[in-house]
Amino acid sequence: MKEFSVTILGSSAALPYKGRNLTSQLVNYSGSLFLIDCGEGTQMQMMKYKVRFMRINHIFISHLHGDHFYGLIGLVSTFHLLGRRDPLHIYGPAMLEEIIRLQLKASFTSLVYSITFHVVKDDAPVQIFEDERIVVTSFPMQHRIPTTGFLFAEKPFPRKINLEATEKYEVPYTFFPELKNGADYCDAEGRIIDNEVLTTDPGKPRSFASCSDTSFFEALPGFIKGCDLMYHEATFMNDMAVVAREKMHSTSADAANVAVLADAGRLLLGHFSARYEHLGLLLEEAQRIFPSTELAEEGKTYTL
Amino acid sequence: MKEFSVTILGSSAALPYKGRNLTSQLVNYSGSLFLIDCGEGTQMQMMKYKVRFMRINHIFISHLHGDHFYGLIGLVSTFHLLGRRDPLHIYGPAMLEEIIRLQLKASFTSLVYSITFHVVKDDAPVQIFEDERIVVTSFPMQHRIPTTGFLFAEKPFPRKINLEATEKYEVPYTFFPELKNGADYCDAEGRIIDNEVLTTDPGKPRSFASCSDTSFFEALPGFIKGCDLMYHEATFMNDMAVVAREKMHSTSADAANVAVLADAGRLLLGHFSARYEHLGLLLEEAQRIFPSTELAEEGKTYTL
Repeated sequence: MKEFSVTILGSSAALPYKGRNLTSQLVNYSGSLFLIDCGEGTQMQMMKYKVRFMRINHIFISHLHGDHFYGLIGLVSTFHLLGRRDPLHIYGPAMLEEIIRLQLKASFTSLVYSITFHVVKDDAPVQIFEDERIVVTSFPMQHRIPTTGFLFAEKPFPRKINLEATEKYEVPYTFFPELKNGADYCDAEGRIIDNEVLTTDPGKPRSFASCSDTSFFEALPGFIKGCDLMYHEATFMNDMAVVAREKMHSTSADAANVAVLADAGRLLLGHFSARYEHLGLLLEEAQRIFPSTELAEEGKTYTL
Repeated sequence: MKEFSVTILGSSAALPYKGRNLTSQLVNYSGSLFLIDCGEGTQMQMMKYKVRFMRINHIFISHLHGDHFYGLIGLVSTFHLLGRRDPLHIYGPAMLEEIIRLQLKASFTSLVYSITFHVVKDDAPVQIFEDERIVVTSFPMQHRIPTTGFLFAEKPFPRKINLEATEKYEVPYTFFPELKNGADYCDAEGRIIDNEVLTTDPGKPRSFASCSDTSFFEALPGFIKGCDLMYHEATFMNDMAVVAREKMHSTSADAANVAVLADAGRLLLGHFSARYEHLGLLLEEAQRIFPSTELAEEGKTYTL
């Protein structure tokens, strides 16, 4: 199975807080690195945790609150100073390009690599990236400014050839690609051999959903249905639900309810308010609703 | 004597490097805090070193290379989130205001405090700040983009009254303010008592100069003549003098030569290239020319 993991680089909301940097998550799919959000200090976090960050070719920015993207210009500059050659793709709100380009202009910097900005719509789920193995979909969230979440999903795997069965039924190798795609086999005598006889289940494709920042809303679980791992903001505890609603953030319980409704495998809580020195109570609040909950700990890698 | 000190918050050039954050220095004059430059991560550095950063009312940005100001927008945002009320003054190149305001606009942020941007000219020394006790002057440096240094100078102190002498010559209290300003006293019989008989030397006003980034140029020492403490960039050692010239940076020896020519009290080397893991050789290079040299160490406070 290919590596599919998420490393937490920052889990603090709004303000940096001792031991908790601003929001950023690193997705590793089989050695390809994808960055979700890039709060101030993210490049330092990647140096600290020995991330080979020049391998990041795609950066996804959820929204333009500073705690989610003020570290982007620094990372873009560092790539330049380190002589990056590979093109970089940045996905996010429309104004992001203007902000980055203005700052490059201010320093008279002509980048030694190219950046392509992809504007992410925030009114409906939309596929924004695809390679041979995974698809990234953005989906709307409900926050004070336009915000999206991101779903990283493996493509369905080809079915696995059952060599014993293909030998028995004398299926030629040339037909294997079709078998992998699920086709039945029709032999020389016109007999149909079911695909399920000739192949085995390749396993369920995995998916990771990143949901920050948002208040709870009914459509959200549908966007990330059945994901194996989800990161969800939990800025507050439920005793501050009124404040959470006002600020269009979630409580720990909200996050857990999304996990239940989405039928998620595991929930990672993140984006903690600096008012919480210890996070045990946030964890307990979520675990009462959704037991497979963990805290997003900086520097820790969560494997799907 | 009033406190007058400089705390190093970052001493790395261009890229953050383990244990060395991007450029920032904090000047404390009798409890009033002034920030010089604000590289990415500066607010985290201030939290780490327990700086009461809400007391900073004046921020000086030398130039618009990212390692000197990418942390400013994060600090401006944090002030907002913490409910700052005091006006903030920011001094720097003209485009700085556009960059900060664009990012505030992107997050629909209407600050709860006011910022006044002061455009700093880079073609001649100019006084940019003054209060009852100190004066800040900017002066041009020679770098790839418009850049200025900053000189923080105490105003001349009033002369100290010699109470024994004023009693002897029966100088009335009402004349003390004039004595403090250096006036001679003329008594009832028309005799002139020299000011130096009635007062004592209040000591030399102190000054701190911040010089980053710049290549060596002849006029520089004149701008900071006689400063007690100077921070000067030393991006490279002298064996890389050619690269230093090309990039319009200084070597450790350049910095020391400026200190000699400026007749400075002490020199702090900073803005080190990430190529130098250990800084001992940079220190030695400068000390051979100017013995009163120290390395700018993060979190360390240097008192004038």
